[in-house]
Amino acid sequence: MNKKIGSGTFILSSPVKITQFEAVVGQKEHEGPLGSNFLYWSDDEYFGQKSFEKAETYIQKEAMNHVIEKSGFSAKDIEFIFAGDLLNQCAGSNFCVRDIAVQFFGLYGACSTMAEALILGSMVIDGGFADRTLALTSSHFCSAERQFRFPLEYGAQRPPAAQWTVTGAGCALLEKESAGPSVVIEKVTPGAVCDMAITDLANMGAAMAPAAALTLKRYFDDTKTSPSDYDLIVTGDLGKVGADILRELLLTDGIDLGSVYNDCGLMIYDLETQDVHSGGSGCGCSASVLCGYILPEMLKKTYRNVLFVTTGALMSPTSSLQGESIPGIAHLVNLKV
Amino acid sequence: MNKKIGSGTFILSSPVKITQFEAVVGQKEHEGPLGSNFLYWSDDEYFGQKSFEKAETYIQKEAMNHVIEKSGFSAKDIEFIFAGDLLNQCAGSNFCVRDIAVQFFGLYGACSTMAEALILGSMVIDGGFADRTLALTSSHFCSAERQFRFPLEYGAQRPPAAQWTVTGAGCALLEKESAGPSVVIEKVTPGAVCDMAITDLANMGAAMAPAAALTLKRYFDDTKTSPSDYDLIVTGDLGKVGADILRELLLTDGIDLGSVYNDCGLMIYDLETQDVHSGGSGCGCSASVLCGYILPEMLKKTYRNVLFVTTGALMSPTSSLQGESIPGIAHLVNLKV
Repeated sequence: MNKKIGSGTFILSSPVKITQFEAVVGQKEHEGPLGSNFLYWSDDEYFGQKSFEKAETYIQKEAMNHVIEKSGFSAKDIEFIFAGDLLNQCAGSNFCVRDIAVQFFGLYGACSTMAEALILGSMVIDGGFADRTLALTSSHFCSAERQFRFPLEYGAQRPPAAQWTVTGAGCALLEKESAGPSVVIEKVTPGAVCDMAITDLANMGAAMAPAAALTLKRYFDDTKTSPSDYDLIVTGDLGKVGADILRELLLTDGIDLGSVYNDCGLMIYDLETQDVHSGGSGCGCSASVLCGYILPEMLKKTYRNVLFVTTGALMSPTSSLQGESIPGIAHLVNLKV
Repeated sequence: MNKKIGSGTFILSSPVKITQFEAVVGQKEHEGPLGSNFLYWSDDEYFGQKSFEKAETYIQKEAMNHVIEKSGFSAKDIEFIFAGDLLNQCAGSNFCVRDIAVQFFGLYGACSTMAEALILGSMVIDGGFADRTLALTSSHFCSAERQFRFPLEYGAQRPPAAQWTVTGAGCALLEKESAGPSVVIEKVTPGAVCDMAITDLANMGAAMAPAAALTLKRYFDDTKTSPSDYDLIVTGDLGKVGADILRELLLTDGIDLGSVYNDCGLMIYDLETQDVHSGGSGCGCSASVLCGYILPEMLKKTYRNVLFVTTGALMSPTSSLQGESIPGIAHLVNLKV
């Protein structure tokens, strides 16, 4: 009955189907290498709203509404929404879902939220509690900068290891059954928190890489597979610095990620020309790359067997000011067509 | 196969057992009517730590460690921890679990977190993903005041509808099977977000009461039961103002909560003598009343059939400064012995 294998990977008794998905982004993301895959970019960072925070709620709601509309279902056909974001008290998501009468589980996993929502959404479907769930998250460069770093007006200089918070939202519809085309979730490995005493807020990649290594190693051990069994292994938002550390950490365990490895933070921007230093970050980074690029490409069979590993840095500005290090977490979802 | 009845109540295929629980509180809670039920009170609001935030993590960790120790299991026997709190980025919980290598799902449900954690924890057990999960949350008067309201040093005056954030943490161990004494979770009703345009940050009870009414009405309709079928119906932290509104709202739907209704925010303090205005609040309010009083009394058969309904106010200080109203949510768990 227990679906656990090894030390913490879980096989769904029946693969859960991702049938609809949408990514809504801002201007900079539209100008990046994946730009044409995203919906509804805007050169107005406010998206017509009165604050950055309301803009974030707005793009999250656009992603959600597009997914529901495309699905042909109405809100009452969806049992649960699993959502969260980076804003204090997860306000982006709370205000997104307040007009839709769907039962709601608020999550906080920082930039790991998308896989956390996919894992819990697929578990409750597989457990017989739902036919349909939504996984939903967002981030916004301007709301994140002023909350976590400095007001934009300061024009603070960014060090090379810093990442650029993606303005974007992603939403995916998970279903128990579907006759149409879908990508399926077969296995999941939720993360445990891992703190390697990194304190540099401008180097989130280094703080999160050990958590990604922990979850990936656990998954490979549990499933007795190796990176070459997959055609894409993608982390959420380690950026260049973190992705290099992850490769090195896994090599010390004899695991070579090889050429199938990439990071959403490296895919969404052109690091040469877009001045984003170490790459993209934010809940919306992995969510929009998943919903705008990976899932559509999987339906085209570009990728057939993918490990989607989102990574979160679980500090707060207060904990960092109090001298604390940055705990990290990484949740993994195995996607297949 | 689908375990849903009516519009959104879920019956577990096999009741999940709550086998261990513990509540750790501060001095004021110790001085309240339930004081002798709680563990580890201290007249030091820092609990020997260097900040209020670290103190909150400390009491959460004490609650967690006591539960694990009493259970006789080790951390590796527990599949998942579901936890969250009120601190920005849920830092209380993230720092609590970083030293324990258990797979972790971070939640944000504001003061509804305890029931959210019980619901998800029991669903993943019932779905075959875990034998054991922990539900864990906390709040701290001093960390909440300075984050949501004013620095304590200002000595700001509190209006009559204001509530007093409980310094306390609660932890419960959920198990699939157990031979020992336990309270069981039979049915759950997750909440949907409900916003009735209340904007007064000093009147959370009014903002959350409509969500509690929505969830309770859904539950009574779905299960075809009425308040008199239960020997305790307890909301999380509506306080006096919110509890009165809840009674009134349900009366307009023909539902009389009668004498079985109470609120954790009214139970944990003596409103006559403890100067807490409308009563207690905070994630730690319902969590410590549940783990320190309700569950132990259920094992003594004082209560045999209980509705535990935690309520959350999902605004952020930023959203309120931007003129937004306060979305509310209420999650319900049916507990039995």
